[in-house]
Amino acid sequence: MSLDGFVAGPNQSEEHPLGEGGMQLHEWVFGLAAWRGPHGLEGGDVNASTEVIEATLANVGATVMGRNMFGGTGPWGDDPWDGWWGDDPPFHTPVFVVTHHAREPLIKGGGTTFTFVTDGIESALEQARAAAGGKDVALGGGANVAQQYLEAGLVDELQIHLVPVLLGAGARLFDNLEGADVALECTRTVEAPGVTHLTYRVSGAPART
Amino acid sequence: MSLDGFVAGPNQSEEHPLGEGGMQLHEWVFGLAAWRGPHGLEGGDVNASTEVIEATLANVGATVMGRNMFGGTGPWGDDPWDGWWGDDPPFHTPVFVVTHHAREPLIKGGGTTFTFVTDGIESALEQARAAAGGKDVALGGGANVAQQYLEAGLVDELQIHLVPVLLGAGARLFDNLEGADVALECTRTVEAPGVTHLTYRVSGAPART
Repeated sequence: MSLDGFVAGPNQSEEHPLGEGGMQLHEWVFGLAAWRGPHGLEGGDVNASTEVIEATLANVGATVMGRNMFGGTGPWGDDPWDGWWGDDPPFHTPVFVVTHHAREPLIKGGGTTFTFVTDGIESALEQARAAAGGKDVALGGGANVAQQYLEAGLVDELQIHLVPVLLGAGARLFDNLEGADVALECTRTVEAPGVTHLTYRVSGAPART
Repeated sequence: MSLDGFVAGPNQSEEHPLGEGGMQLHEWVFGLAAWRGPHGLEGGDVNASTEVIEATLANVGATVMGRNMFGGTGPWGDDPWDGWWGDDPPFHTPVFVVTHHAREPLIKGGGTTFTFVTDGIESALEQARAAAGGKDVALGGGANVAQQYLEAGLVDELQIHLVPVLLGAGARLFDNLEGADVALECTRTVEAPGVTHLTYRVSGAPART
């Protein structure tokens, strides 16, 4: 997230999946060995972010994301969009995509499968929990689906990777939440090159399963 | 600042100077001995925030604030508003209030004087620098005047006291800055009860005088 609260820049498109300027939010990660490995790349840096990334990867058993993060809009059509991540996506777990448009599951390499869930966020979370086998369910994004889960009280931990840039416009993580009852407690702060990792416990959220 | 980017809640009024819910942003400070002392109160806690507050107080030689932070709106009238802080305001330094409405300086106890500056933010900063005698000039707020100084490239350090609440509405610190060229580097992170203190160097800003 940018210091001004955006998780993607303005004008998201196939050319700019994270919106204009949005790649700046992820620059801290691309040089890390802990990121390069799961993406099939060798080498890379080790720094204070390494442990944060490794812990997240080790504990996640399934991922939920919104249609906007998976990419494309509207009905899938005859030659459907297969995601941003090629044949070996970096998730290596079952991924549940919340969408209005039904579609057969998509099986990719390296253990990543995409299941398209059309009956709502609770159903996606339930399926992800079952698939995670006791591990964490990661909420990948984007902002819209994150807000839906926050508002529904279904998030028990927030990890904010706060990047010292001002995007000025785009998709805000914390938007459309006026009136939502979200009580937070900061449980961990890790300062690393180009990013500050902030972990928050969401109070009153259901216990992890 | 709230995690969702607000430095004051919605509907600021005499009853709610920081807007509805805005007091939550300052709860971490009220119990501290380092805050209570300068406000004429005894006792209080000592924790990781103490050093942050003490360092700020020790280094500040003058303060700039906007009219909205000083309080009241429009012309001063016959019985002008004298600020939120009573006869012994906690600044103990010269304060320069950026306003459209001229007024004689206001001299309070404990070394706090309010000078009302009607010829713009550069003039207020210049006067504050001269008054600070080599110490730092603190930009008190609110959001609007902070944005004006950021956009003008006149800020060299940002201190964000990030509080784990979502206000949902109010005055955003980083707003109206689309197109502003603000490059930031996080230089310090301090985790403390109820708040995370983040210090950013603003690159390309003029050197401190």
